[in-house]
Amino acid sequence: MLRFAIIGAGRIGGVHARAIAAHPQAELALVADPVGDAAARLAAGYGAASTTDVDAVFVSDVDAVVVGSPTPFHVDQIVAAVDAGKAVLAEKPVDLDLARADECVAAVGDRADRVMLGFNRRFDPGFAEMKSRILAGEIGGVEQLTIISRDPSAPPAAYLTGSGGIFRDMTIHDLDMARFLLGDITEVIAVGQNFADDIKEIGDYDGAVLTLRGANGGVATIINSRHCATGYDQRVEAFGPTGSLRAENHTATRVQYFGADVSGASGPYLDFFLQRYTEAYAAEIDHFVTAVEAGVAPSPSLADGREALVLADAATRSAAKGGAPVSV
Amino acid sequence: MLRFAIIGAGRIGGVHARAIAAHPQAELALVADPVGDAAARLAAGYGAASTTDVDAVFVSDVDAVVVGSPTPFHVDQIVAAVDAGKAVLAEKPVDLDLARADECVAAVGDRADRVMLGFNRRFDPGFAEMKSRILAGEIGGVEQLTIISRDPSAPPAAYLTGSGGIFRDMTIHDLDMARFLLGDITEVIAVGQNFADDIKEIGDYDGAVLTLRGANGGVATIINSRHCATGYDQRVEAFGPTGSLRAENHTATRVQYFGADVSGASGPYLDFFLQRYTEAYAAEIDHFVTAVEAGVAPSPSLADGREALVLADAATRSAAKGGAPVSV
Amino acid sequence: MLRFAIIGAGRIGGVHARAIAAHPQAELALVADPVGDAAARLAAGYGAASTTDVDAVFVSDVDAVVVGSPTPFHVDQIVAAVDAGKAVLAEKPVDLDLARADECVAAVGDRADRVMLGFNRRFDPGFAEMKSRILAGEIGGVEQLTIISRDPSAPPAAYLTGSGGIFRDMTIHDLDMARFLLGDITEVIAVGQNFADDIKEIGDYDGAVLTLRGANGGVATIINSRHCATGYDQRVEAFGPTGSLRAENHTATRVQYFGADVSGASGPYLDFFLQRYTEAYAAEIDHFVTAVEAGVAPSPSLADGREALVLADAATRSAAKGGAPVSV
Amino acid sequence: MLRFAIIGAGRIGGVHARAIAAHPQAELALVADPVGDAAARLAAGYGAASTTDVDAVFVSDVDAVVVGSPTPFHVDQIVAAVDAGKAVLAEKPVDLDLARADECVAAVGDRADRVMLGFNRRFDPGFAEMKSRILAGEIGGVEQLTIISRDPSAPPAAYLTGSGGIFRDMTIHDLDMARFLLGDITEVIAVGQNFADDIKEIGDYDGAVLTLRGANGGVATIINSRHCATGYDQRVEAFGPTGSLRAENHTATRVQYFGADVSGASGPYLDFFLQRYTEAYAAEIDHFVTAVEAGVAPSPSLADGREALVLADAATRSAAKGGAPVSV
Repeated sequence: MLRFAIIGAGRIGGVHARAIAAHPQAELALVADPVGDAAARLAAGYGAASTTDVDAVFVSDVDAVVVGSPTPFHVDQIVAAVDAGKAVLAEKPVDLDLARADECVAAVGDRADRVMLGFNRRFDPGFAEMKSRILAGEIGGVEQLTIISRDPSAPPAAYLTGSGGIFRDMTIHDLDMARFLLGDITEVIAVGQNFADDIKEIGDYDGAVLTLRGANGGVATIINSRHCATGYDQRVEAFGPTGSLRAENHTATRVQYFGADVSGASGPYLDFFLQRYTEAYAAEIDHFVTAVEAGVAPSPSLADGREALVLADAATRSAAKGGAPVSV
Repeated sequence: MLRFAIIGAGRIGGVHARAIAAHPQAELALVADPVGDAAARLAAGYGAASTTDVDAVFVSDVDAVVVGSPTPFHVDQIVAAVDAGKAVLAEKPVDLDLARADECVAAVGDRADRVMLGFNRRFDPGFAEMKSRILAGEIGGVEQLTIISRDPSAPPAAYLTGSGGIFRDMTIHDLDMARFLLGDITEVIAVGQNFADDIKEIGDYDGAVLTLRGANGGVATIINSRHCATGYDQRVEAFGPTGSLRAENHTATRVQYFGADVSGASGPYLDFFLQRYTEAYAAEIDHFVTAVEAGVAPSPSLADGREALVLADAATRSAAKGGAPVSV
Repeated sequence: MLRFAIIGAGRIGGVHARAIAAHPQAELALVADPVGDAAARLAAGYGAASTTDVDAVFVSDVDAVVVGSPTPFHVDQIVAAVDAGKAVLAEKPVDLDLARADECVAAVGDRADRVMLGFNRRFDPGFAEMKSRILAGEIGGVEQLTIISRDPSAPPAAYLTGSGGIFRDMTIHDLDMARFLLGDITEVIAVGQNFADDIKEIGDYDGAVLTLRGANGGVATIINSRHCATGYDQRVEAFGPTGSLRAENHTATRVQYFGADVSGASGPYLDFFLQRYTEAYAAEIDHFVTAVEAGVAPSPSLADGREALVLADAATRSAAKGGAPVSV
Repeated sequence: MLRFAIIGAGRIGGVHARAIAAHPQAELALVADPVGDAAARLAAGYGAASTTDVDAVFVSDVDAVVVGSPTPFHVDQIVAAVDAGKAVLAEKPVDLDLARADECVAAVGDRADRVMLGFNRRFDPGFAEMKSRILAGEIGGVEQLTIISRDPSAPPAAYLTGSGGIFRDMTIHDLDMARFLLGDITEVIAVGQNFADDIKEIGDYDGAVLTLRGANGGVATIINSRHCATGYDQRVEAFGPTGSLRAENHTATRVQYFGADVSGASGPYLDFFLQRYTEAYAAEIDHFVTAVEAGVAPSPSLADGREALVLADAATRSAAKGGAPVSV
């Protein structure tokens, strides 16, 4: 039985609490959040203790820490937890600043196999199936990878101001997916789009199209938008010499409507990551628990978190230069 | 080059005229229709001769005759054409009266290999593919066959009055399809439904569900309706011990719409048989021409036409007895 | 918080235990099973007490009892639990013998609103969505209902011997679904099929096709098989005057494969009811808990359980008479 | 009745011959091809005259000329035909050299409304439906356009040597489609890929990914490959603020296979443009005939042909510079 503390009682903290509670080898022991009674409220639902003193986590007897705090706290908390001998599951990104991420990697040093980065989409059953079928050689390798990733609607401008920009906040998941399915990336071309004025005003984009060259000659395309009328648009397509694989969107049910004007009409996509990636979060916790219990390094690693940030930085620079290629 | 005459310049005559004109080894030479200038108008579009004297067909020098006249004329015209040494492609049904169909079979005698019955759906590329994949053993035999067949909307009551009832007029296509894909049928159970008052008043049904026992132990289900809001609903599903095959409906294009309320919405089904079975009519003519030129018997045969009528009769009796099983 | 006892620590008992444990207003307090340590093992996973004395359930302080024992015990246990003042969620069927079911209804009397029958499929999100969209008038009523329901593979002959036959054991779910979506049924026509010799030897069928007349003029078709190569085949299609609704099968993921010979190939269907109806079992418990807490009658009721049995009996008689219509 | 001559009796000449023959207001009068008996053979199938002297076309009495010769002859033949007072349907590209295309535009001058460029895909019923639904405002404008366009297999290296490279030979269709659905393009980023050695040796690519900025802020992505195991991969997806539209690939039938390992498996895509775009070629001829008969300018125009070439040139330069943005 792995005993967990969660730092950060927000939305993502709640997702992890549920996944931990449902896991037969995991137990939620402690929730820490400095703001108001958020920790107490989240802890109550699972019979866990709570605290507003985050440092209490590191002196507690938990085995593992989920770092679900706001991004600026990630590095210090990852390092403190590792120093305290805990296993760590940290939400992405490591930090918005690559230098800070490098400090984190350095501070963790050879204890990196105690830290897992929370790129939940790798654990989506569909994307995980694609990965294993690609590895099994079903399509003969990946020559072209297409990732379409659109949020249902943009977060408030206030949130986006501190988000590091679309590439570090949103695209970073897709950059990790590109690494997951295509392998190492050597060059990034990013084109930003502005449709929403409030997002433009804070110097960010609400749409983006990226082209990534892979070390193996493959190319990945990422198409992002901060809005999608039909819901959370999350698709991946891998094309290889002998076939291709597509992961299609999820709908709430498999019911289709047929009327005078349409046939085969499903409902809209599941609205957002809590619904769309429920299974992925559960599988992520399972992988973490299994790896920690077995004493092997979980994956994705802190280094994977850093690499995705390197790509997001490159995308930010490329977009700023109007789509010029940036080597990484 | 096979030279054709068409008897009957109505809708189905027009379908065959187009298919003949488009076939490289076929030529439309003559159109006969006793009513007004229908023959002249159809013939004009294809540079063919026309006549209001149907008997002129049998003394003409054409090689083949398409019998596309109203049902009561079928038997006499089939026999006259065969007597005149012509090959015959006759529209279904042979007749509404089984005794007359038997007379036709008797009169044609050992010249039956000169006559083909126009069960066009056997030539639909999808249904034909199902047949050949079933024969190839892909699903290990047919245990259960489901045929859904719904017209977009009912013909006028005036037409239906002389139609012989839904089983002889509409279901007959599905009965032939059941024989095509499942084999010989030994028993028919038919349940009629009445939703439209005008059809009920003439003693007919506007919906029906049939269960057919096959000689091999398989069972076919036929679901019919005289109306379907989404268009011409024409589906077949064959279930066997090792797999199943489904032929889905056709839409005008493969475009799908995704909006706030729906995803993957295609357009409605192709509206009716002229659109839905265009390719089938062309393939039917091709089969007929090829068989006649090669001197082999085309299929489906006059006997197949009679068998479908036997089943339609059985269905009519079963429905009249409230769904009692009727052996054939 | 509703405190539960489960009678029967077999497969279905385990399904309910998990759903109860995961429900925020429910708690698993006691598991009873007379056979070996089955109760102890199931209880251990959820911190519940266990007993091999089923009668202990009725004198315990639990609020609700799940009757998941073998069918012959259902009636006595339902009555005992109701007599003890418990709310009851009983697995289907009430009994294999209609007279016994009638005794159960009589014994429960006006306390019937304390008993729910476990027709889990009503709670499948897809079928539930169909029901609510039908009620909302989206298709203008149901004229034809098609239920395809095939198990991945037949249970051992030993199990089937005591099962009451395919109609009482398997079709009963589909008969309830027909009542759920079409309404009252007035007549049953059933045709049995035999492909597997061992099932034939025990006097049962391994395939069946049923036609049900609804009181409203609609007709339902049920197509059953004890085997399906692609997995658990569970589809429903409702056809009405203004449109239709289809609930399609579930696959493990939405990944599709495209190769030299195929396009758009998904994986096989989820294999069986534990996977296919996971959400349904959770929703069923939720409905039961909510109804009991609110003091209202849960649905489906004991009477619904009896009605399904009436239809299964009628189907058994119809099949024995070679498909003759049986009024109910 | 519009009387046609076709210059070039190759594969594309044959496609147009068939479409002209099938059109009620069009007639194939003459086929010209300097090589061997190609013209004679093609003409024979349609009762047309033939010649090995291409200049004979311009002094003939035909109303319209289809320029289906090898690319280097296009400009001279377009100009000669226009000078001779003929309407012209010219295959793409106008020329591989933009300067020559400019000469063509200049020479044709204000007679440009007599010339149509054969971008057949605009007439594909699916893509045409997308265009009209976009114009009707169904998705609120186009923010992101994704065009996936892969050939079944690469032509021989000998053909590719004179093709002008992948962007002028293959991508040019997609560049026109981007203009058709997104509008004017202001910038091109192109990344080439090399998987096939023989294509690399002649300095060409066998894969490419392009990003096009639209004047309206939209971005189009084009993904090309010279090979695709599943057939001719031709998809377009338009994403807008209120919805999106997708045109999916075509298969020969709508039959799906379900077995132990797969569900819903369709056959492979139609293999190549003769099958995939049969309807498009017919609709293209119909548009041309209708426009010429009505005395209005057909579309796409010679200017559209030039614009696509401008984009293909920009793509060629961008790819040569490793994906640097090139303004147009």
